[in-house]
Amino acid sequence: MADSTPNEPSPADPAAAWRGRRRRQDHGTKREAVIRSAARAFDQRGYHNTSLDDIAAALGVTKPTIYYYVANKKQLLFECFLAGLEPIRNALRRAEQTPGSGRDRLREVIRDYALAIASEYGWCMVRAEHQDLGPELSAQVRALKSEIDRGIRRLLQAGINDGSIAVADTRLAAFAIAGALNWIAHWYRSGRSLTSEDVAEAFVQFLEHGFAPRADSDQGRRAGRPG
Amino acid sequence: MADSTPNEPSPADPAAAWRGRRRRQDHGTKREAVIRSAARAFDQRGYHNTSLDDIAAALGVTKPTIYYYVANKKQLLFECFLAGLEPIRNALRRAEQTPGSGRDRLREVIRDYALAIASEYGWCMVRAEHQDLGPELSAQVRALKSEIDRGIRRLLQAGINDGSIAVADTRLAAFAIAGALNWIAHWYRSGRSLTSEDVAEAFVQFLEHGFAPRADSDQGRRAGRPG
Repeated sequence: MADSTPNEPSPADPAAAWRGRRRRQDHGTKREAVIRSAARAFDQRGYHNTSLDDIAAALGVTKPTIYYYVANKKQLLFECFLAGLEPIRNALRRAEQTPGSGRDRLREVIRDYALAIASEYGWCMVRAEHQDLGPELSAQVRALKSEIDRGIRRLLQAGINDGSIAVADTRLAAFAIAGALNWIAHWYRSGRSLTSEDVAEAFVQFLEHGFAPRADSDQGRRAGRPG
Repeated sequence: MADSTPNEPSPADPAAAWRGRRRRQDHGTKREAVIRSAARAFDQRGYHNTSLDDIAAALGVTKPTIYYYVANKKQLLFECFLAGLEPIRNALRRAEQTPGSGRDRLREVIRDYALAIASEYGWCMVRAEHQDLGPELSAQVRALKSEIDRGIRRLLQAGINDGSIAVADTRLAAFAIAGALNWIAHWYRSGRSLTSEDVAEAFVQFLEHGFAPRADSDQGRRAGRPG
């Protein structure tokens, strides 16, 4: 937090939403700051070891202020999950509306998926436990995850149909892709030498081509024949 | 457990180790039965919801009998982790001693890794939390996981050296491979239409070739040129 400018709210410091000239920030910005701050705290200390007091303190506000934006800690965890998922859902929506081969469109979704998991929301998206959310929110999480899974399978199938993708089973391929990407939350820590963009690019390449060398990448791209 | 034969100990029923003609089973077999039964219980009910009494009851023995084989529940979780890891460590040892390209040897390790994660030990290997183990056993788990990671990276590097593998970064490729495989523990349930062998075969194929079609698989295998 030391490197942020007090008057400019930035991703680096959610507390800035309550400071200086920006005191009259709109509700949406402040709510986002609460969620971002919570995501960071859950990631660092775990959900059970983080209180709403901790989150309020990190933002320099009181606990009632937090309650103005979310009903309880459970909902806060759910909002963190949603915030992390949003760019993936947007990427899938864009992919559905964009012309191009299934492979080209899947590549873009994988890139945004990797960036989302490598973000501060990655922990909430992958490592938060369903039992922490209670049955109702947990069911919503399952439905949203299933929506992402179906979106990836649709792109795989579109690629199979247009000859740009060759997988034997879209369900298992979607699980392999999601598994490789979700696992990023287990090992990636930001602020080290590897940027989230580096990770995203490496994962796009690996998931597209695997570990086998390409005989001829241009040829491979044109041919569209399953091996 | 209904479909097992009382006198024949089988993977389907660890309790058989204490029954009938086999009463004088050796210590190793019974210990293994305790560990297998625990792995199954942890997977089904979670670690915190399973007591040593539950495990003893499932085996038809008393709790002191369990203590004859393991010191406590924590050690039991660690033993489940070890039992699941053993086939992967064996596969890596075999790979180190076997001639052949890096790609061929990595393929065999991936197959055994997938089978291990799809086994009843998968939950303990992937989803058990480090904090449940305490600092000492947790450090051992980290060391063992790191051993597997290094083994996979060595095979990737061997394949790069002999031209059978093309990845830009062995560390990230090893994370992608492990992530896809570890995630199997999140979605796979045995006893349905998909066997663990089906899953292993599909994952070997996907991780080797990705979702892009191969221009010519034979050519690709011989060429060894990174794309």
